[in-house]
Amino acid sequence: MATLHTVQGGVTAPGGFLAAGIHAGIKPAPLPDLALVTSAHPGVMAGVFTKNRIAAAPVLLCRRQLRRHAGRAIIINSGNANALTGRQGMLDAMEMRTLAATHLRLPVQSVFVGSTGVIGRPLPIRHIRRAVAPLVRRLGRAGHRQAARAIMTTDTVCKEIARRAAVGRRVLTIGGMAKGAGMVHPDMATVLACLTTDAAIAPRALQAALTRAADETFNCISVDGDTSTNDTVLCLANGQAGNPVIRMGTPAWNTFYALLRDVCLSLARQICRDGEGCTKLVEIVVGGAKTDRDAGTIARAVATSLLVKTAFFGEDPNWGRIAAAAGRAGVAFDPAGLSLSLNDTPVMRNGRGMGDRADRRARRVMRNREYTVTLSVGNRRGHARLWTTDLSRDYVTINASYTT
Amino acid sequence: MATLHTVQGGVTAPGGFLAAGIHAGIKPAPLPDLALVTSAHPGVMAGVFTKNRIAAAPVLLCRRQLRRHAGRAIIINSGNANALTGRQGMLDAMEMRTLAATHLRLPVQSVFVGSTGVIGRPLPIRHIRRAVAPLVRRLGRAGHRQAARAIMTTDTVCKEIARRAAVGRRVLTIGGMAKGAGMVHPDMATVLACLTTDAAIAPRALQAALTRAADETFNCISVDGDTSTNDTVLCLANGQAGNPVIRMGTPAWNTFYALLRDVCLSLARQICRDGEGCTKLVEIVVGGAKTDRDAGTIARAVATSLLVKTAFFGEDPNWGRIAAAAGRAGVAFDPAGLSLSLNDTPVMRNGRGMGDRADRRARRVMRNREYTVTLSVGNRRGHARLWTTDLSRDYVTINASYTT
Repeated sequence: MATLHTVQGGVTAPGGFLAAGIHAGIKPAPLPDLALVTSAHPGVMAGVFTKNRIAAAPVLLCRRQLRRHAGRAIIINSGNANALTGRQGMLDAMEMRTLAATHLRLPVQSVFVGSTGVIGRPLPIRHIRRAVAPLVRRLGRAGHRQAARAIMTTDTVCKEIARRAAVGRRVLTIGGMAKGAGMVHPDMATVLACLTTDAAIAPRALQAALTRAADETFNCISVDGDTSTNDTVLCLANGQAGNPVIRMGTPAWNTFYALLRDVCLSLARQICRDGEGCTKLVEIVVGGAKTDRDAGTIARAVATSLLVKTAFFGEDPNWGRIAAAAGRAGVAFDPAGLSLSLNDTPVMRNGRGMGDRADRRARRVMRNREYTVTLSVGNRRGHARLWTTDLSRDYVTINASYTT
Repeated sequence: MATLHTVQGGVTAPGGFLAAGIHAGIKPAPLPDLALVTSAHPGVMAGVFTKNRIAAAPVLLCRRQLRRHAGRAIIINSGNANALTGRQGMLDAMEMRTLAATHLRLPVQSVFVGSTGVIGRPLPIRHIRRAVAPLVRRLGRAGHRQAARAIMTTDTVCKEIARRAAVGRRVLTIGGMAKGAGMVHPDMATVLACLTTDAAIAPRALQAALTRAADETFNCISVDGDTSTNDTVLCLANGQAGNPVIRMGTPAWNTFYALLRDVCLSLARQICRDGEGCTKLVEIVVGGAKTDRDAGTIARAVATSLLVKTAFFGEDPNWGRIAAAAGRAGVAFDPAGLSLSLNDTPVMRNGRGMGDRADRRARRVMRNREYTVTLSVGNRRGHARLWTTDLSRDYVTINASYTT
């Protein structure tokens, strides 16, 4: 496996990409709320989207455009999700696309649109109309950070990464930016990520790599594939690295996939760490289940349990709650075979607690900002790994009056 | 349908029942933590239990005993769940049963056991050994309130009810007590309820009535049938009303069922109102779905959404979150047919918001302590109704250090 290197530059780290962010007026001044990423050359586009029945207008538009798997630019606004906005919402998303295409002198079909923010309010398209021209003028290689800032909602830090790896005699770079901070439950994990790469890759090979990488990273922190109205992960590959076109099932694909997964995992963990009001990042590992699917179901039940998450926040070694959450997952296992550790500290073995000394040690582990909870539910080979956060008083404060 | 009357007396309201509660020492003095309910005459017992894979020892014991459908007494401790306690836990539950049977001079098989409290810690059976004799001495018709207090955990108020209705020429009474306060999510709704009645009823008829009544009440507030390690609802019928034995499919069964459901609903609503740190009791009604099951799935998705529940707490008319939660339920419906009201205030019709004036009116509705959210997802006949609560900062505080 090729060595991966972290490099500077976010979405403009790969050759041929420019980016910009600007304050359009959807959010209060001077917060940037409109981002643009473009490639100097035509590229291949892949995307992964929310499975919510109520998908936002830009998601519907992207899905439709993706049939062609070709693209040159991505325009994203924050502050308004353009979701549950009916026919007008779709017209607004299309106008946003046309505005970017016109000013970039590109075909409309090569521009992809993303939105994130409040649901159910009309998109204030007039602000975007005024902002696209200055946004295009600002495009540059240094614009990646401003673009990453312009897609933030409740995020407290801006999330970027770029990594590089050798494939044959060429070096490939993948850059990315993401927003997302509400990682404490499946239905609030609005994730929006924009990935760029200079790799030359076939459309199907890119889509397969993105689908699998998103599944193992973004879908493991959002804990459920079935998330918000606006979840969008787009990846644009412009081929500027000059490598032979990567196809499915080749060693080059494996390297590309590993690089892409690595970039996605970095962004996913950044999102997790920036969970709304979160103070902990906890890895949940389930082993010994009958199938990976069973293990995943148990891991999700633990990762989404409010009682477990509040115990994480309180640094309270109430491991009975973890076991009880596993028990209600709807997966058959023998409680007498259940074991549980926090990092290397066993607290429960074969269905019974290990006593007060173990609990005291567990409490010390829980004082860490990041740790791992390992459940063994039997002696089979099914395995799963997820990331979750604690649930704090601040989470409630942040979300109690989001629209006000 | 017969008229129902509320009467005083909780579990001792029906003839032939006695109750008591005492401080045994599991909880800090002087909190009562051991309850006993007995019938002067042999009776018919029915029960409904948790579906959690990790059922507590007393649940396993009750299930086994229920094969005989006969009973005379119920002993319940709070402060310790006797769950995840292995073989010793089962021995302790059996000893608790034997202690009560010995002091009451009853066959062991006629005594049922319940426990609620912290999971995974050995039951301090020595406290119970000392307390059963004085507990039995205290038995009386006035003991219902002390018994109801003795089963409380994080409850802030004690929950009792008794109702009466005429069946033919006889008057039947059903009394009940319950504990439960963590109603904000499926996996934390430990419900323990003890129901008594003077009705003469066949074992299968009693079990059928209890199963259905619990399904439409306790399982609609706990939002999911798949709850804690200790959920237990027991009903003991001693036949002292002298009515002809009630059998399935008769008008008398229907009246009995309606009375039982009414008692369960009252207890369930008391539990909901006493939700940990809760300030709101919100009814979720879903109509127009293809099937009742689909409607229930959508209602559950809304009722368990953290974003929805924090918006309830913040009195924030962020109805987009309600729609988004419905959308992620995994049930197919046309978003363009989605309508939504808070009490009589429509906020969304046919997939679109009704504007700022409607939102302002919705905000006024949300200032109430109790209100109804109605979703219409189409024009079919599937229908469901659930109760949920808000999620407050206090909820987090209460649960962050439950064991400490």
